[in-house]
Amino acid sequence: MISFPFTIHATEGAARTGVLQTPRGTIRTPAFMPVGTAATVKALTMDQVRATGADVILANTYHLMLRPGGERLQRLGGVHRFGGWSGPILTDSGGFQVWSLAGLRKLTEEGVVFRSHLDGSRHQLTPEHAMWLQAEAIGADIVMQLDECTRFGSPHREAETSMELSLRWARRCRDAFGERPAQTLFGIVQGSVFEDLRKRSAEGLREIGFGGYAIGGLAVGEGHAAMCDTLDVTVPHLPGERPRYLMGVGKPLDLVAGVLRGVDMFDCVLPTRAGRHGQAWTWDGPVNLKNARFAEDQDPLDPQVPCPASQDYSKAYLHHLVKCDEILGQVLLSWHNIAFYQHLMATLRDAIAGGTLHALARDLTTRWAGQASSPRAEPAP
Amino acid sequence: MISFPFTIHATEGAARTGVLQTPRGTIRTPAFMPVGTAATVKALTMDQVRATGADVILANTYHLMLRPGGERLQRLGGVHRFGGWSGPILTDSGGFQVWSLAGLRKLTEEGVVFRSHLDGSRHQLTPEHAMWLQAEAIGADIVMQLDECTRFGSPHREAETSMELSLRWARRCRDAFGERPAQTLFGIVQGSVFEDLRKRSAEGLREIGFGGYAIGGLAVGEGHAAMCDTLDVTVPHLPGERPRYLMGVGKPLDLVAGVLRGVDMFDCVLPTRAGRHGQAWTWDGPVNLKNARFAEDQDPLDPQVPCPASQDYSKAYLHHLVKCDEILGQVLLSWHNIAFYQHLMATLRDAIAGGTLHALARDLTTRWAGQASSPRAEPAP
Repeated sequence: MISFPFTIHATEGAARTGVLQTPRGTIRTPAFMPVGTAATVKALTMDQVRATGADVILANTYHLMLRPGGERLQRLGGVHRFGGWSGPILTDSGGFQVWSLAGLRKLTEEGVVFRSHLDGSRHQLTPEHAMWLQAEAIGADIVMQLDECTRFGSPHREAETSMELSLRWARRCRDAFGERPAQTLFGIVQGSVFEDLRKRSAEGLREIGFGGYAIGGLAVGEGHAAMCDTLDVTVPHLPGERPRYLMGVGKPLDLVAGVLRGVDMFDCVLPTRAGRHGQAWTWDGPVNLKNARFAEDQDPLDPQVPCPASQDYSKAYLHHLVKCDEILGQVLLSWHNIAFYQHLMATLRDAIAGGTLHALARDLTTRWAGQASSPRAEPAP
Repeated sequence: MISFPFTIHATEGAARTGVLQTPRGTIRTPAFMPVGTAATVKALTMDQVRATGADVILANTYHLMLRPGGERLQRLGGVHRFGGWSGPILTDSGGFQVWSLAGLRKLTEEGVVFRSHLDGSRHQLTPEHAMWLQAEAIGADIVMQLDECTRFGSPHREAETSMELSLRWARRCRDAFGERPAQTLFGIVQGSVFEDLRKRSAEGLREIGFGGYAIGGLAVGEGHAAMCDTLDVTVPHLPGERPRYLMGVGKPLDLVAGVLRGVDMFDCVLPTRAGRHGQAWTWDGPVNLKNARFAEDQDPLDPQVPCPASQDYSKAYLHHLVKCDEILGQVLLSWHNIAFYQHLMATLRDAIAGGTLHALARDLTTRWAGQASSPRAEPAP
């Protein structure tokens, strides 16, 4: 297994900052990966994404296997060339999206058979096919194992059965992935909110050996506190020298909480999705640009965020664009939100390096209290 | 009346190329003005618009008087500041949009009363109010008189009555506009397809005296040939030393035909509207990116057009974005189309300067025959 060199430059408590070196470029950690679902970070050009400071983006195997399709994507030279992103790309396995297709999927030991949400066509995703799709067709730099995302609220027995299936699939993914000189494979810890299952899952994955370890099955409705508790009982079982990736998370205070607990990588559709719906995250908290109080507000969204969308347009203009359903409103708010997330991550990295992360986290928790839905950013003392 | 300095550098037949000097910057003519309806050229940032080579944009008084509203816009410092465009802006008078609100408007000598298409609220547009909106609230550099757009197919008597109303309104606009040190006012020739009416309209406007002369009442369904015929009987009655503006036109061959007949300025929603619907104009003609033949086409849209959207993305990727209804598809095709239009205008300007316009026009007419709907680009010999 190729493990990309991962160097930790500084730590503060469980938190750490460093760099993950990939053949396509350096990822500064903790890192937030904008989600480029269908080979596009929605509403943005890759140049705009790059200018926010994003080192790596995520692409969704489920969406890409349906459109343009794996074989076509392979003929087109993979998603770097197709989408115009020369830096590293991480792909999910498609498992999470298929899992959300309630009623349209059937799970077996072999894999999952599902019907496309687009045209009802029948598809199969197995550990082996997920490896081919990500490593060969899409050409991802960081490939995720196929897993089953255990539903939140599962009883222990169900969570255990599901976790064990994911672990058997992890082995098959590792075997199918083979030896690749410039790509790496991450395993995914499952086990819902149960400490014993998370521990067994982590140990099973370490035994197989992966280039990095993701924490799956969160951001599925468990809430901020349960997410924190699960991180508290999961992270200690992951190898310290490999990157840790908290999948699908989250709101700004969720990221802070993850960083405090030693997470190195995050992804979430929130900044782009919120941006398309008129919402912006700023250092002063979230704002909804539809609100009439912005109609004559000449201030920019957030002058601290180094992005044209954050600095060069008045809230009055953004309010107008949102009210008029103008595409530019969706573009600028998506762009700002991605830039804010990158600025937040850069600030967290600097804080770890300077030994001020816990003070910053306390400040942000106070500052965003009641505005963000996440009630708890700091780990239990 | 302030008339912006207009210098003609070269002519070829009736065609001419030069510069219109405004206090906010130089407009190279013949010029195509992207339409920034609601203070946004749909789907694009002003930086993207600027980078295509656009010297001037158009904004719609009708849309702006409804949202954000004239008084609010005035408080916000006008549309340059609001929309972030520092170059010259031309505004239409709102008359054309109101005219298209069939059943929701009532025309009198005083002006036009109409109901908003958004919320049914009642508004009035008079020559005096149109001047206040454009010159004071919006702060346009080039202001258009309020006119009545005569419907295509009107009998002579109806077209005459309508044209005479527009002429009386031209006088009232001129009086209301007053003396402004840094803004200018254009009159609008009406008269439908009737030579005698166009001549009387042009003469009436010249008598009042304007900073430029627009040709209105075209691009309303008359077709390319009738448009050309009307230009042939209208342009000769306009003063040669002032800019001529053909409103709402058009497709690429319409622009070529207008330039051949001595038109200096154009505007049209076509490039952005077509872009939002998956259509692109290129030097090889129009293409519909939805077409399956582009699914694996690795070539860019048009490498001759100096724009990232034209050069840096494969047709396969654009096809994918359009098929997936991705916002980025609308952004890139709008951007490319505006860039193509600017590249076309730059090429026409160079051709006039080099004495090759007629040869180029013949070549384009052949090249785009059957692909563009416009059957006739060259003037009658």
